Amino acid sequence: MKNYIIHCDWKVIEEGFDPKNNRVSESLFSLGNGHTGQRANFEEKYSGDSLQGNYLAGVYYPDKTRVGWWKNGYPEYFAKVLNAANWIGIHIQVDGEELDLATAQVDEFKRELDMHSALLTRSFVASLPSGKKLEVEAKRFLSMKNQEIGVIRYQLKSLNFSAPLTVTSFIDGDVMNEDSNYDEKFWVELEKEVEGANAFLCMETKKTGFHSGNRQLTRVLLNGKEQLDQPEALQKEKFVGSVFHSQFQEGDTLVVEKYAAICSSLQTPKGKMKARTQKLVEEASAKGFEQLYQEHSKAWELRWETSDIEIKGDRAAQQGIRFNIFHLMQTYTGDDERLNIGPKGFTGEKYGGVTYWDTEAYCLPFFLGTAPERVAKNLLMYRYKHLGRAIENAEKLGFKNGAALYPMVTINGEECHNEWEITFEEIHRNGAIAYAIYNYINYTGDRQYLAPYGFEVLLGISRFWAQRVNWSEEKQAYVILGVTGPNEYENNVNNNFHTNKMAVWTLKYTLDVIAYIKREHPYLFEELIQKWKFNELQETDHWKEIIEKMYFPYDAKREIFLQQDGFLDKELIPVDLLPEDEYPINQNWSWDRILRSCYIKQADTLQSLYWFQDEYDQESVKRHFDFYEPITVHESSLSPCVHSILASRIGREDKAYEFYLRTARLDLDDYNNDTEDGLHITSMAGTWMSFVEAFGGMRVKNGQLMLDPFIPKSWESYSFKISFRGSHLEIQMGEELKIINHNPGMVSAIIWGKNYELQEKQELILNREEK
Amino acid sequence: MKNYIIHCDWKVIEEGFDPKNNRVSESLFSLGNGHTGQRANFEEKYSGDSLQGNYLAGVYYPDKTRVGWWKNGYPEYFAKVLNAANWIGIHIQVDGEELDLATAQVDEFKRELDMHSALLTRSFVASLPSGKKLEVEAKRFLSMKNQEIGVIRYQLKSLNFSAPLTVTSFIDGDVMNEDSNYDEKFWVELEKEVEGANAFLCMETKKTGFHSGNRQLTRVLLNGKEQLDQPEALQKEKFVGSVFHSQFQEGDTLVVEKYAAICSSLQTPKGKMKARTQKLVEEASAKGFEQLYQEHSKAWELRWETSDIEIKGDRAAQQGIRFNIFHLMQTYTGDDERLNIGPKGFTGEKYGGVTYWDTEAYCLPFFLGTAPERVAKNLLMYRYKHLGRAIENAEKLGFKNGAALYPMVTINGEECHNEWEITFEEIHRNGAIAYAIYNYINYTGDRQYLAPYGFEVLLGISRFWAQRVNWSEEKQAYVILGVTGPNEYENNVNNNFHTNKMAVWTLKYTLDVIAYIKREHPYLFEELIQKWKFNELQETDHWKEIIEKMYFPYDAKREIFLQQDGFLDKELIPVDLLPEDEYPINQNWSWDRILRSCYIKQADTLQSLYWFQDEYDQESVKRHFDFYEPITVHESSLSPCVHSILASRIGREDKAYEFYLRTARLDLDDYNNDTEDGLHITSMAGTWMSFVEAFGGMRVKNGQLMLDPFIPKSWESYSFKISFRGSHLEIQMGEELKIINHNPGMVSAIIWGKNYELQEKQELILNREEK
Repeated sequence: MKNYIIHCDWKVIEEGFDPKNNRVSESLFSLGNGHTGQRANFEEKYSGDSLQGNYLAGVYYPDKTRVGWWKNGYPEYFAKVLNAANWIGIHIQVDGEELDLATAQVDEFKRELDMHSALLTRSFVASLPSGKKLEVEAKRFLSMKNQEIGVIRYQLKSLNFSAPLTVTSFIDGDVMNEDSNYDEKFWVELEKEVEGANAFLCMETKKTGFHSGNRQLTRVLLNGKEQLDQPEALQKEKFVGSVFHSQFQEGDTLVVEKYAAICSSLQTPKGKMKARTQKLVEEASAKGFEQLYQEHSKAWELRWETSDIEIKGDRAAQQGIRFNIFHLMQTYTGDDERLNIGPKGFTGEKYGGVTYWDTEAYCLPFFLGTAPERVAKNLLMYRYKHLGRAIENAEKLGFKNGAALYPMVTINGEECHNEWEITFEEIHRNGAIAYAIYNYINYTGDRQYLAPYGFEVLLGISRFWAQRVNWSEEKQAYVILGVTGPNEYENNVNNNFHTNKMAVWTLKYTLDVIAYIKREHPYLFEELIQKWKFNELQETDHWKEIIEKMYFPYDAKREIFLQQDGFLDKELIPVDLLPEDEYPINQNWSWDRILRSCYIKQADTLQSLYWFQDEYDQESVKRHFDFYEPITVHESSLSPCVHSILASRIGREDKAYEFYLRTARLDLDDYNNDTEDGLHITSMAGTWMSFVEAFGGMRVKNGQLMLDPFIPKSWESYSFKISFRGSHLEIQMGEELKIINHNPGMVSAIIWGKNYELQEKQELILNREEK
Repeated sequence: MKNYIIHCDWKVIEEGFDPKNNRVSESLFSLGNGHTGQRANFEEKYSGDSLQGNYLAGVYYPDKTRVGWWKNGYPEYFAKVLNAANWIGIHIQVDGEELDLATAQVDEFKRELDMHSALLTRSFVASLPSGKKLEVEAKRFLSMKNQEIGVIRYQLKSLNFSAPLTVTSFIDGDVMNEDSNYDEKFWVELEKEVEGANAFLCMETKKTGFHSGNRQLTRVLLNGKEQLDQPEALQKEKFVGSVFHSQFQEGDTLVVEKYAAICSSLQTPKGKMKARTQKLVEEASAKGFEQLYQEHSKAWELRWETSDIEIKGDRAAQQGIRFNIFHLMQTYTGDDERLNIGPKGFTGEKYGGVTYWDTEAYCLPFFLGTAPERVAKNLLMYRYKHLGRAIENAEKLGFKNGAALYPMVTINGEECHNEWEITFEEIHRNGAIAYAIYNYINYTGDRQYLAPYGFEVLLGISRFWAQRVNWSEEKQAYVILGVTGPNEYENNVNNNFHTNKMAVWTLKYTLDVIAYIKREHPYLFEELIQKWKFNELQETDHWKEIIEKMYFPYDAKREIFLQQDGFLDKELIPVDLLPEDEYPINQNWSWDRILRSCYIKQADTLQSLYWFQDEYDQESVKRHFDFYEPITVHESSLSPCVHSILASRIGREDKAYEFYLRTARLDLDDYNNDTEDGLHITSMAGTWMSFVEAFGGMRVKNGQLMLDPFIPKSWESYSFKISFRGSHLEIQMGEELKIINHNPGMVSAIIWGKNYELQEKQELILNREEK
């Protein structure tokens, strides 16, 4: 837990330089634009502790798996997003002395991230060991208008000296991932070229053969005048740069402008990097810093228009929620169906930058609610495109006949993860991927997606469930043995309620989808039968039998479903009674003790109750919540959001707020002491979800929008925005509830239980008492 | 599966050189004498595939743990027995051309291990690429009389050439473990010295600071006459040697005799290596090869006198059982309580050469039955000495108040293993260590061992069980959650029958032991109460409650105990019905599929039925055997022995024989294609156990020896020998049963259900019909 970030509505601000916080700040102040992203490393040399990070969306390397004890079925590789060429380098030497904040005395240090326009500014006064004083201001952004452009404006002022000054502006491709399994470097140099201020470097990844193209055009202005001397060209292995020499007088100001093109072969054909990057830097430098920034800023403004959340009366909360929305928008723009959302986005390497079930379970609602429909759809298409691989993955584990098991962790559809209890057993992810299809269609009404995309994925997943269950003679029911539920603090359990529920639900939903396609797309259905060798009658009869005869662990006394078989054999001691120095238990208890304890890492049975809330009445939700919540340790950042929403459903507004707070500033306050590894991007989506669904009470039931807002006691007012089926609503909750429909076209919504119709621009005002 | 070893009563013979089999043969022909051991590597250079291995008992290095995903509680290091200096090197150059069986044409190759006298002989004719032909015969042994001495006699004959010959006799300390986690070398050089034919090398292990001292005195005889020219001294980093030059004429014979001292700081104080090794090689060379061999051979003869098993009518079986006994005797002599038995002995590196529960569960009976009492006692003392560490180990996992959890894998008492499902969950090992105390006393009658050694260990283990159980409100019974039983094809199960049984049994036995000590050693008991802060009343009351209220999973319909909770939810398909290409399942199925299947790796519930056979009547054993055996895949080499013994108990003699065969020649025929890694030493003890307990029907019940022999149909006769409480019995089973008591003193035994008393030298002859 840290508390050094200054609270501010639209900005993240750090004042004073503390090297101990540097890695944390590098994460917090990260920039990204969906195509590329980077940690907030310094432009000038920094010999202190730092995690350098530049990432190109979708560019990965299959790092050879490293395990202690190999289990049959483990994947050979862990595909990870690569640390790519570092293009921000601007090294400064004054009379041969290097500017390095690890050796200089640093005063008036300020780092500021303007979230409204995604601009990173850093300023400080550095006194070099020789006593020379420099004032520096650096501004940087990754253009949201043209996502292959990054721009830096680095300004130096001499405060007390006159001396020769050398500026080296460079691109360094000799980088590696800190988490490389065998300390291997993953990039090889392909081509480079430096001509004066224009430097180009083209690299290729080993094995996967991705190309990256980086080019920079550096412009140096002394006291506002461009330096006309041709800079010195610098070339080393995997390194290009331009070196500028100046005579610097006391009071002089030098500005370095760097126009960078950052391309990858996902967009630019191999062999075209040179020309493409040349065109990009020429156009960018012609526009100049200011115009580029205006365009970028405008693009961000448009995004905030549909996604901002405003909170009055609590600045920390205001900053927190915007910080989360900001980073989600930096990470994924939905322009490319090959991309997805890594748990750390572009802010670190942990978890390989690859896709987990987090996307479907936590991120989808944010993009459904704030972005154009195609953005959420592309997240679904990502999985559709991987269906073949999911079938291969299932085959490796012994399944047949088109059964699909989506990987736990992936970038290209192949499984990467290698911890048997997760890789092989957390099959509930397959359910989340099916549920996301339902969720998308329920929200958008785009049933067309089912034919054929949704259907094909659902068929593969249903076939998996149908093979994964087995008949228990003992129970005279179908069971699912040997799984790990969302609660990873239990492994290899039998009949995890959530997993069994997802299996049955998927089968039911697929039957509905089949009925829909047969009715609405009969010819397509015939084609699909052929394509997938779908024996409808036989397969669906088996599904129906499973639906009818699935076993669910249940405690008749408490009238609750049990997380898994044998759960009641545990000692049920509420978390509150644990000595404080024993948690987080994952840092204080050995793994076996965690496993056999009753403590739950994140919503598991409650995850089902959240997703299928229509099936459970309030009393039932209360019973489950009151049983599970007190033994939940929330040691996953994905846990509180679901609890917040359910607490709200059962009228526990204080609890809902309490859970919301647990993740809202998770990274800003470095709650878990791990922000240095990168930000919890997918958990940020969970925070949004708990705002809109817990405080806003938003749900969509059978295509009908429902809102049930309340306001946490300590706030004056809040507002949030959602897009829903063409309408664009703003919900303001304060003394009264005001709902504005900004878009043309009428939208109907059930608000506090009553039906309303909102015409374009109409403002609906309700008194709080109407709740 | 291979079949290249020639069947022979007392010898292991390989004829013809096939490099593909080389690693396997290096394992099979390994030598050892309890103090040191080595794989059957070649003396001359060999550039082909080989696993060089020389090991010093008890000399280890804590290799930094390597895992894919760290779990809280994992040990930081895996202590492994080290590959030590290679002292056998005798390189031969003829006119500059190296003798190397990978490049020469090899004829008349024969490798022979005489198990009666533990002599390794190798002979061949090598045609060098130049056409020069050499005849070679090499003999080698590790003295069982003086265990710090190794001797080689290496004879060369020129068949068709006259040329200068160079012999380099050396010690090479620059070796490493193939399984080093980070490719690190674990030895550093301390001191070396070469004077003519006398070369000395002293090395030290990193971190653990063990010293090894190797010295060799090389003697070279040309046509029977000692070469008097002083050899050339050779010194390199971690390497010492002596180089002899000769003129070699066609028909000449050159003999290289190497007298080697192999010392470690476990026996020789640091700083005394130089003097100690000098004394050893002087004495050895003064005696000469023949006398040393006679002494060595005599020592082996004595061992065979009390341990041999003879089988008539089946040479393969005869060779198999002797091979197993031979390697067990090479591995552990019981002279040093700091040593134990690694799963591969001195024959390979796999499993780190460290101690598993195999020792207590499978090896102890062999040493009880064939060696002096002190040998088995030292195996117990090994654990006693580690009691403090076992308590620390338990503390790391959250236990208190002197609870002891012995490690799953260890060399110095600290846990090495790092697979949570085994390291933390296979706690039944603690039961095996308790059971070994009972087993030792039941066999030897040495109750004195309990005061205090046995008691202290039992107290620690009982305290562990008392804390490891928890009360299940649901079941109104004590349960043990989250364990892995002996069947490692299930992880994190609840109420594993065997584990629950071991817990209750340990508590009961400890109560008996307390009663004994209070009665027989009241003053000592008072001391122990103080020493261990033993609150007798309170602690034992809790134990009694656990004993009374422990839950055991049971199927009332089948009248059998279930391996664990939920076992009957599995699909119970006998192994016979699996397609042949699907097993071994651990090579063909992904891990999750194995886990949720009904298939059992090795005796689990049946392990309890074997250990506590007095508690279960024959019908009950039959029911359990008939339920579990058909779903057991025996993919551990430790599985068939227990099944063989139980099959014999229930009168299934054919089955007993069938299971016996599954391990008797496991390594000789390379059944599992893994003999190249080393031999299955602990499984060899299981084979002995199934011979003596299944065929011989040997049991000891309340101190009473019982024999119930039968003979497999295909054999003419067999005989085995056991030591029992001072008597030394030979049991011959053929047309009739003959039992001879070789020792002074009477012994009583129940044979085929009738009581007999055997006086010294008495031969009891019973007709087979009396069975």
